[in-house]
Amino acid sequence: MEINHYSRHLELDCVRIDDKFWSKEIELVRKEVIPYQYNALNDNIPGAQKSYSIENFIKAAKIVQNIKENKKVETYPADKWEYTDENCDENAFHGWVFQDSDVYKWIEAAGYSLMHTYDSALKRKADEMIDIVCNAQMDNGYLDTLYIINDRDKIFTNLRDFHELYCFGHLTEGAISYYKATGDKKLLNAAIKFADLICSSFGEDKRKGYPGHEIAEMALVKLYELTHSRAYLDTAKFFIEERGKKPYYFDIERDKITVEDNYFYNQAHKQPRHQHEAVGHAVRGVYLYSAMADIARFFRDDALYKACEDIWNNIENKKMYITGGIGATVDGEAFSFDYDLPNDLAYSETCASIGLIFFARRMLEIAPKSKYADVMERALYNTVLAGMAQDGKSFFYVNPLEVLPEASHKDSRKRHIKPTRQKWFSCACCPPNLARLISSLGEYCYTQNDHTLFVHLFAGGNIKTDKGSIHIRSDYTHSGEIEFDIKPNKPFTFAIRIPHWCDNPEFSSEYHEKDGYAYFRVHHNTVIQCKFEQKIKIIKCSNNVRANIGKAALSRGPFIYCFEEADNGKNLQMLSISPGSQMTYKDGFIIADGFREKPDDKLYTEYKAGVKKNCKIKLIPYYLWGNRGENEMSVYIRIV
Amino acid sequence: MEINHYSRHLELDCVRIDDKFWSKEIELVRKEVIPYQYNALNDNIPGAQKSYSIENFIKAAKIVQNIKENKKVETYPADKWEYTDENCDENAFHGWVFQDSDVYKWIEAAGYSLMHTYDSALKRKADEMIDIVCNAQMDNGYLDTLYIINDRDKIFTNLRDFHELYCFGHLTEGAISYYKATGDKKLLNAAIKFADLICSSFGEDKRKGYPGHEIAEMALVKLYELTHSRAYLDTAKFFIEERGKKPYYFDIERDKITVEDNYFYNQAHKQPRHQHEAVGHAVRGVYLYSAMADIARFFRDDALYKACEDIWNNIENKKMYITGGIGATVDGEAFSFDYDLPNDLAYSETCASIGLIFFARRMLEIAPKSKYADVMERALYNTVLAGMAQDGKSFFYVNPLEVLPEASHKDSRKRHIKPTRQKWFSCACCPPNLARLISSLGEYCYTQNDHTLFVHLFAGGNIKTDKGSIHIRSDYTHSGEIEFDIKPNKPFTFAIRIPHWCDNPEFSSEYHEKDGYAYFRVHHNTVIQCKFEQKIKIIKCSNNVRANIGKAALSRGPFIYCFEEADNGKNLQMLSISPGSQMTYKDGFIIADGFREKPDDKLYTEYKAGVKKNCKIKLIPYYLWGNRGENEMSVYIRIV
Repeated sequence: MEINHYSRHLELDCVRIDDKFWSKEIELVRKEVIPYQYNALNDNIPGAQKSYSIENFIKAAKIVQNIKENKKVETYPADKWEYTDENCDENAFHGWVFQDSDVYKWIEAAGYSLMHTYDSALKRKADEMIDIVCNAQMDNGYLDTLYIINDRDKIFTNLRDFHELYCFGHLTEGAISYYKATGDKKLLNAAIKFADLICSSFGEDKRKGYPGHEIAEMALVKLYELTHSRAYLDTAKFFIEERGKKPYYFDIERDKITVEDNYFYNQAHKQPRHQHEAVGHAVRGVYLYSAMADIARFFRDDALYKACEDIWNNIENKKMYITGGIGATVDGEAFSFDYDLPNDLAYSETCASIGLIFFARRMLEIAPKSKYADVMERALYNTVLAGMAQDGKSFFYVNPLEVLPEASHKDSRKRHIKPTRQKWFSCACCPPNLARLISSLGEYCYTQNDHTLFVHLFAGGNIKTDKGSIHIRSDYTHSGEIEFDIKPNKPFTFAIRIPHWCDNPEFSSEYHEKDGYAYFRVHHNTVIQCKFEQKIKIIKCSNNVRANIGKAALSRGPFIYCFEEADNGKNLQMLSISPGSQMTYKDGFIIADGFREKPDDKLYTEYKAGVKKNCKIKLIPYYLWGNRGENEMSVYIRIV
Repeated sequence: MEINHYSRHLELDCVRIDDKFWSKEIELVRKEVIPYQYNALNDNIPGAQKSYSIENFIKAAKIVQNIKENKKVETYPADKWEYTDENCDENAFHGWVFQDSDVYKWIEAAGYSLMHTYDSALKRKADEMIDIVCNAQMDNGYLDTLYIINDRDKIFTNLRDFHELYCFGHLTEGAISYYKATGDKKLLNAAIKFADLICSSFGEDKRKGYPGHEIAEMALVKLYELTHSRAYLDTAKFFIEERGKKPYYFDIERDKITVEDNYFYNQAHKQPRHQHEAVGHAVRGVYLYSAMADIARFFRDDALYKACEDIWNNIENKKMYITGGIGATVDGEAFSFDYDLPNDLAYSETCASIGLIFFARRMLEIAPKSKYADVMERALYNTVLAGMAQDGKSFFYVNPLEVLPEASHKDSRKRHIKPTRQKWFSCACCPPNLARLISSLGEYCYTQNDHTLFVHLFAGGNIKTDKGSIHIRSDYTHSGEIEFDIKPNKPFTFAIRIPHWCDNPEFSSEYHEKDGYAYFRVHHNTVIQCKFEQKIKIIKCSNNVRANIGKAALSRGPFIYCFEEADNGKNLQMLSISPGSQMTYKDGFIIADGFREKPDDKLYTEYKAGVKKNCKIKLIPYYLWGNRGENEMSVYIRIV
């Protein structure tokens, strides 16, 4: 590995986003999503399924208090994924096994948002939330309300299925965000106390377990970066190294021996350094792969990096939708086999694409190759943004590439494909994950090392680093023009990603190109203008993907387009384009000169080519679909 | 309805099949399937899942004996679909709720087979089986081993979910077959005794229920036709009339009120005469529709016939695979919505196509329109025959039109799609159903009324009716040449179906055509030769079916063709033909001049047409697929 290329992302306090496109999304999260989620966590949304999140912390705090006072505390079973009024005692834990994490993700998003736009009312709410959380922490640092409420003796006994270490990960990420935003250490101290308990509980000669749902690894690395306390980095490394060793810890935990196949789901079938294919639950996967990249970078671990690179290539070349969606199957919310990318059965969870962005940035931090940022952009501008309605009030968990509402309603195989966004989910991982990503977008746009500052994503605004300050005016999503007004403190190298979709990048200054970046040497105040011409492109998906044979998709700049019934009528499958079809772009839409087949009367007839009429087909960016009620949608269109 | 056209099928004792194509299949059933199934029923197949069928009858006989002797009998829960060693007492009923029916279907097939080829060893086995069955009958005529063994007090209390009336139906059909074959009345008397109990238990002013899984209706009509005992016909009619009336009997049974949607599965959402779309569990559906046609015919019931015709048209025009498969979705083994005919997710149960043949013949008996026989042929020569391996030793329950073995193994949505035939099924409805259909094929080839004898399917052999005798030499599946050597007892009209796929039927005599039949007047000994030229045809599926846009299938005569990896290599999706492709037929195969695309290296690239090479594509009849181990298969091929 080329160590001198190692770079780190800019911290949010160095980046201010002020961008036509992104400011709107960030404000939507601040004004709509964060307040809505606050109400959801507090069960203040009439008609919505209860979250129980805050209730659980309050119940746990009482138990902690009773333990301190040596009062008798009850025990309830800790044996389910979801605890409901129907299946458990009213005094027991309620909600999903990972319910606590929703609170932490909200705090994390609130922290990022405060960093961007200070809001005293939001800070007050977050402080109250943090008080509620911290009251529930046990004296030894343990903090997971399921086990605190239901059964203290069972702590860390079912790492495979339950989510103590997952909740710890989100607690830590939330605490770090909030500390960086406000300087308040209360939640950070709680996270550190829990982290210390974990570091003293897991390791060689200690409990040799690792998380069933990864994220603690990434969080421990972040905590190390903040505190420089070595134990956190070592425990993260331990979790990575121990994972998948035989006999499987998850087998030992339940005192039986099983086979490798059982642990694909958790990516625990073999040691991460021996993994070369993306398998299992997609969100867990990309969280693990992100941490593997972190550890590979810190420890200059070539074999682990090789595993990351192989997994990356497997995702990018064989398991990723054109929209940057990953995890093709509802079956275990998982990566499917190579080239299995069905459009109408897609899972493509919003959170999985968010995790893919985490993984991409970490790969960029190891090696600044534009392919990572290209995928980051693909996932961000398409699947991730599609996750949220234009009004910020409803969300997609699943992001299909083809929708027929009748099928979603009538076909159990497609029941996960929702034709419109949902207000909230009982398993509400995606909306808060989306909120924290959008609010922290600045962390994904830039990385730097001692000599070079890299631009990976193009958002207008300002950045300030030791190298100097840069003002960025970006019209990236429309004209493709961006201007960097650079005021250096010292000479440095400035590297701008050349988007993969741009055939003729134009820059106002001389540059040399390497791995998809244009490198400039900056000595004094400089303005670099660049233009990435936004041509409408017809994209072909590999013929290894059965679903897309004979079809094409349209893109313009970073956006993949789709077409909806609202613009084009029913039976979208009867529309087609030809390779020479005239396409025009206007106000964000594409109008393609295409064809519409006349519906066939009979089910089976002797073959003759369909009767086609010329028609105009209107396409909209994929992320905007589903904002006009239930209707048919498709990304791919037949090309004849 | 044109009453003078009403016709009835010929009985098996009037028909002798002696045909190059069909005799082989009938012999396979006689020599392989019937003996194998006998062993399966007796749990004599090492390694196979236990059937428990005979065991249950023996257990039930003991209970019946104990009741007679006033001995104490135990009670066990009768509350499950499947009773296993794990979930029930060893003395209780075992197997599926409809386990008895496997025995009856075997007896039915054995009866037909004996009629065709007498076999004293088979008769002895069947007689023993019948003794075992009859010993289990209760004094009042009741005969369903689940309730006899587990709980006599619960008889007829859960018609919706359990299968007493279904098992009665198969008992009756088996008994009639065996009586007609052998003249032995023992099983027939048992069926009559059970039928009498049912007729005295159900009806106006009695229990107003009807079967959850239809077939009793058809069986009661058959019993009426044999015995002319009016109660059987009236009870069949009652079941049809009462079905779907509100409040729903199935609701009353469980003392709660539900909505229409709940009873689509059982076709009990509304009265059959008000049903106009094929919905719910496909096998149940076609069994009901068959009985509706029976009742419409007997009672000259125009409204009921209209419902049958509407349902038929819905199936034929919107819900039937090109292979004659129906029931597109695994979800409830059901008809899906209009035009939802996915190839790689198809359910298309063998039994459903068998039931479609039942329905088709009954529609033919009302009105001799070739469309019914065309569908009968389509289902028979494709899906039904595909249900059985070439050696008669393994079977398909599900008949997909596209198979990728990796998907079947790895994708839960496709787990029902088996890439090779199975030895036996725990739910073993299809193999015995297939055995009874093939063995009784003669009942589906011909119908007659007072003045006309109709030929619907073309199998060589002899028929004898009051109109005279006919010797048929058929080379239908190869040259398409058939010769009818007719020796009439009296002048009559002879009607030969003109297959829908034949553009230029040739007949040696003058005829007039009506509704797809060529009508001949036969006065004296006559030879009619006909030729249905077997052209290879490229078939287009309606563009309303999303799965087949841009694709075509090939057929020749009654056979739909498919192409397999064994002949054409992996990645069948990369093969294509053009509308002008040269096709040649040789020895049952089609060789098409087509194209093979070079696999794309990258997942997403700017569009350009794939690089294609000319290649030969070998296609085999669909019913032969899967006889050479696991491999890719597809019926549809891209057409460019």
